[in-house]
Amino acid sequence: MPDDFERMWSDLAPVGRSSRTGGYFRQPFTAAEEELRAWFVEQCGARGLRVERDGFGNVVGWWDVGSGPALLTGSHLDSVLDGGAYDGPLGVVSALAALDLMRARGAVPARPVGVSVFAEEEGSRFGLACLGSRLATGATTWEQARALTDRDGVALGDVTSGEDGRLLEGVGTYVELHVEQGRDLVDRGAAVGVGSGIWPHGRYRLEFDGEANHAGTTRMEDRVDPMLTYAFTALAANKQARLAGQRATFGRVAVEPNGTNAVPSRVTAWMDARCETEEGLADLVAAISGQAAERAGRDGTTLVVTAESVSPAVGFDPDLAAALAADHEGGDWPVIATQAGHDAGILAVAGIPSAMLFVRNPTGVSHSPAEHAEVADCLVGVSALADTLERLAR
Amino acid sequence: MPDDFERMWSDLAPVGRSSRTGGYFRQPFTAAEEELRAWFVEQCGARGLRVERDGFGNVVGWWDVGSGPALLTGSHLDSVLDGGAYDGPLGVVSALAALDLMRARGAVPARPVGVSVFAEEEGSRFGLACLGSRLATGATTWEQARALTDRDGVALGDVTSGEDGRLLEGVGTYVELHVEQGRDLVDRGAAVGVGSGIWPHGRYRLEFDGEANHAGTTRMEDRVDPMLTYAFTALAANKQARLAGQRATFGRVAVEPNGTNAVPSRVTAWMDARCETEEGLADLVAAISGQAAERAGRDGTTLVVTAESVSPAVGFDPDLAAALAADHEGGDWPVIATQAGHDAGILAVAGIPSAMLFVRNPTGVSHSPAEHAEVADCLVGVSALADTLERLAR
Repeated sequence: MPDDFERMWSDLAPVGRSSRTGGYFRQPFTAAEEELRAWFVEQCGARGLRVERDGFGNVVGWWDVGSGPALLTGSHLDSVLDGGAYDGPLGVVSALAALDLMRARGAVPARPVGVSVFAEEEGSRFGLACLGSRLATGATTWEQARALTDRDGVALGDVTSGEDGRLLEGVGTYVELHVEQGRDLVDRGAAVGVGSGIWPHGRYRLEFDGEANHAGTTRMEDRVDPMLTYAFTALAANKQARLAGQRATFGRVAVEPNGTNAVPSRVTAWMDARCETEEGLADLVAAISGQAAERAGRDGTTLVVTAESVSPAVGFDPDLAAALAADHEGGDWPVIATQAGHDAGILAVAGIPSAMLFVRNPTGVSHSPAEHAEVADCLVGVSALADTLERLAR
Repeated sequence: MPDDFERMWSDLAPVGRSSRTGGYFRQPFTAAEEELRAWFVEQCGARGLRVERDGFGNVVGWWDVGSGPALLTGSHLDSVLDGGAYDGPLGVVSALAALDLMRARGAVPARPVGVSVFAEEEGSRFGLACLGSRLATGATTWEQARALTDRDGVALGDVTSGEDGRLLEGVGTYVELHVEQGRDLVDRGAAVGVGSGIWPHGRYRLEFDGEANHAGTTRMEDRVDPMLTYAFTALAANKQARLAGQRATFGRVAVEPNGTNAVPSRVTAWMDARCETEEGLADLVAAISGQAAERAGRDGTTLVVTAESVSPAVGFDPDLAAALAADHEGGDWPVIATQAGHDAGILAVAGIPSAMLFVRNPTGVSHSPAEHAEVADCLVGVSALADTLERLAR
């Protein structure tokens, strides 16, 4: 008998956890992430699932039943730096538990069902979010990806191999269960919800260049200090996003030379921006870049803005979402949007009909050690996922 | 025959130099800095100087002539991160060259003359500037210093030993030659100048704490983002310092978790602040801290300000400075102040009469790969230092 949800959950709890912060550091191709992948393969074995992997580290455990277009469900096991336990692993553990539940119910799917784990969903190491699903769908080629480097300058091509994946051949539908990253379900009083779509979003690298100089002897008026241009831009971005219910965040900064007694020569800052529409996103980024460039002109600094990745708006198939949400014990599940990117968005854009289930998060906090979901809600999620798979696999 | 100034200068040019930036990374107890120390000991040997060191890495090469209170001259060999070639090494190379010049002139000092190298003058690794001279004078005890850690968490006590130094016993006067770090000498049309004093200055660590959260799903109005409080503070500090010709710089920042798609949980930023008077410095730091705390209140973040080191005002002995500056070929040398801390300041505060000579810097840029002095001015500096030592050693 395979482990149940809570047993699997406690198996994963210590892996990659920082005892200082309580958060997770499960960056791709590190010991913690490899351990999670090995655990997943072992769980597949215990359930008699046939394991298939591609050169990049994406893995699917197949329940080879029925015929026709396969049904895939899963999520990811990597985390952001100092992230929470739920973002990713909840979808993988719930998928395994949902299979157990289907089997316990005696369900016999009419088509193959796979449980998937996509690598580097967070882009926390190589900067490109959903990298595993991008490679698996061909949205990004291995030729493009292999040269990506992490913060230590290590190239992706040096830590893993890649290939033009065939892992998703024959997949007809993808369903991803995920912890909610806001409080929509709290407000609606629902333990689970169905995703309607994903906001367009992008990552932009802003390089502010100035002139290093002595922090004591250089008069304030003689400085060309890129820290000032950056600081202004961080505040301007926040204000600009606030105005229209959009998002702009500076969560990552690198200063050169980063010495206390030197005016910096360069500040590199990464902006995460999101908006309900693609046009709105482009306008938001242009407005912030414009204000930053204007300030750079006054500071004597220079600014180069590079879009590292931009993900278009994703609308999940509305008929599929409505069908999944309707007629459940206790009423229909709400259909909600998210501002967060997911592998399901990449698969949807690649033409694979996709859907998402969200599990309520009491505080809405995510990408943080404080990320949480109650066990009772997680178990409702497992049951909802099993129901969904049964409906889709008829 | 020992190497002359230019030969010694070119010996040092490649050590610890980054081929990418052209700047120097000569942090204490690293390979580059050890190589410089070994070079110095070799140069002392070539001149028949008796080498004495303390447990921390401070070194003096003694010319054992005459008797009575010794005369010490020198500077440091470590650099800030990505620093220039001149800050520190110019004083050491000039000291050796000045000894050569004195000997070539047939000068016989009436008292011992030492050439000194103090370790970790910049505080670039363990955060406390002038650490070598602080330990040598007892301003900081080894018991206090041994627990200091670098950015990788390595403790000072693990990379070097310490002891309550006797290195400066018997030293009656200290003279440090240094590249100027502003443009005062440019404006005055002088190749060298004599130091009148050092502004009081300090390093303050500001820890801004907020709540990590998802950069996409968290509404702007629900965030507790310490980056915003920091950005406001960096701009406020600049404005505050500008108002009264003071200095406030944020050159070093550390963000946690430093991920693109997460609102940070913590931003730690180091402020370097300097002012003409100690009272003014306290007022400046209080004003900036007050504005930062007020903003933290609005952002919902918290702020803790810690003074990592505060150095009092140093006034070099005015009679000594005037005596050194007067009656030279081509007129008196100007007497100028500096906003930069130096080992000479630590020795002066410890009761050792001290003086500084500055060599003109065409652009005034320092703590940067662009730091420069013309060879002709450096040679005037060597000659000025030799004159000074001869006057003082009579």
